[in-house]
Amino acid sequence: MSAEAYNTRLIRYLANYLTENRKTTIEQVLSHRTRKVTIALEDIYQPQNASAVVRTCECFGVQDIHIIENTTSYQLNKKVLKGSYKWVNLIRYKQKNSDNTLACIQALRNRGYRIVATDPAGRESLEEFDFGHEKVALVFGNEDKGVSSTVLENCDTILRIPMKGFTESLNVSVSVAVCLYQIMLKLWKSGDYGLSEDEKNELRLSWYRKSIRGSAMIEKRFLESLH
Amino acid sequence: MSAEAYNTRLIRYLANYLTENRKTTIEQVLSHRTRKVTIALEDIYQPQNASAVVRTCECFGVQDIHIIENTTSYQLNKKVLKGSYKWVNLIRYKQKNSDNTLACIQALRNRGYRIVATDPAGRESLEEFDFGHEKVALVFGNEDKGVSSTVLENCDTILRIPMKGFTESLNVSVSVAVCLYQIMLKLWKSGDYGLSEDEKNELRLSWYRKSIRGSAMIEKRFLESLH
Repeated sequence: MSAEAYNTRLIRYLANYLTENRKTTIEQVLSHRTRKVTIALEDIYQPQNASAVVRTCECFGVQDIHIIENTTSYQLNKKVLKGSYKWVNLIRYKQKNSDNTLACIQALRNRGYRIVATDPAGRESLEEFDFGHEKVALVFGNEDKGVSSTVLENCDTILRIPMKGFTESLNVSVSVAVCLYQIMLKLWKSGDYGLSEDEKNELRLSWYRKSIRGSAMIEKRFLESLH
Repeated sequence: MSAEAYNTRLIRYLANYLTENRKTTIEQVLSHRTRKVTIALEDIYQPQNASAVVRTCECFGVQDIHIIENTTSYQLNKKVLKGSYKWVNLIRYKQKNSDNTLACIQALRNRGYRIVATDPAGRESLEEFDFGHEKVALVFGNEDKGVSSTVLENCDTILRIPMKGFTESLNVSVSVAVCLYQIMLKLWKSGDYGLSEDEKNELRLSWYRKSIRGSAMIEKRFLESLH
């Protein structure tokens, strides 16, 4: 039996342990999940900020969040997360003695993303920015210094959020939310942002496992029933 | 001499103590300040959240922020604020043994605001919401419970931010930013959101005072020069 066929049968088996309500919720959330847009955070050090970003991505349907850890280690604040981290993929870049920013940008390019850095001095304003039909990775920098020169030198363009006050920048979790909502509005209208059936199946299985208490034992029984 | 005439002369006097650069910045910020929209926060208890809201308002040009303190006392986090609180007006409702929520709503109505509560179960979605040409006050609730029943019963409408994930709500500072940016986009395009000349003069004087080291002493000399 192929891995796909195994997974399909396992999903059907696990479905017996979920309420109709839960299955409906999972299908609804799945139908709005997207990889057309992703977020990369570079050396964010306040757990509250990183956590609020994860929560925002989960709420808006963004499945992948890339975490670059050159100088700071990514930490979470459970109170802010509200369980959101369970339902998204955190992809971490934290090799020692290595440029994790470059590694992340390369990985994003390999996945077909256009790299959009965000900076208060950016060339293009969010008000007029055309996200086009390409896949977009938005890169946000550290709370004090913003994105690094590595990001600025290796991105495709630099985006700024229009600001009209004395304060020079928005909080990073606020910046992510403002940009992300603008992109999502467009994607939701276009309808063209969903995952492939294979991607959906993979997530469905993962979410079923997370939604069922003692799913490992149940899966063991399923495996035995195959023999 | 009338108070207005006094202030006008004082502003001219204080202007000698500011660089051209500083005066230009102040005029730019002034030209984008608005009271067409305001934010009210009800019993927010995390200083990080309240502070991020103040910073967002300052960055987007919202001059007034209303703080309702029934059960919690408003506290600030200087690291998050980045000095933003100096340039906005915080109007606090914190009378003991009194319904501060009602007091705030009444005060907002007296100032001509339409009261828009925000809640994940809101009737109207931000995607289609028409902010119209009226003055709008957006009310955001406590991190755990959202807006109180007092707000829900006394508002004009309830707005929800579209959400597509498992997590039921966004962080409060994120919610404020997402809603506010949508309104500001519309106001910036319309061009119809600025303060009156009197309001600008009042703020100009206040900001000159805050921008000049030892402004109290300088003002004293100005006063003496009048006699």
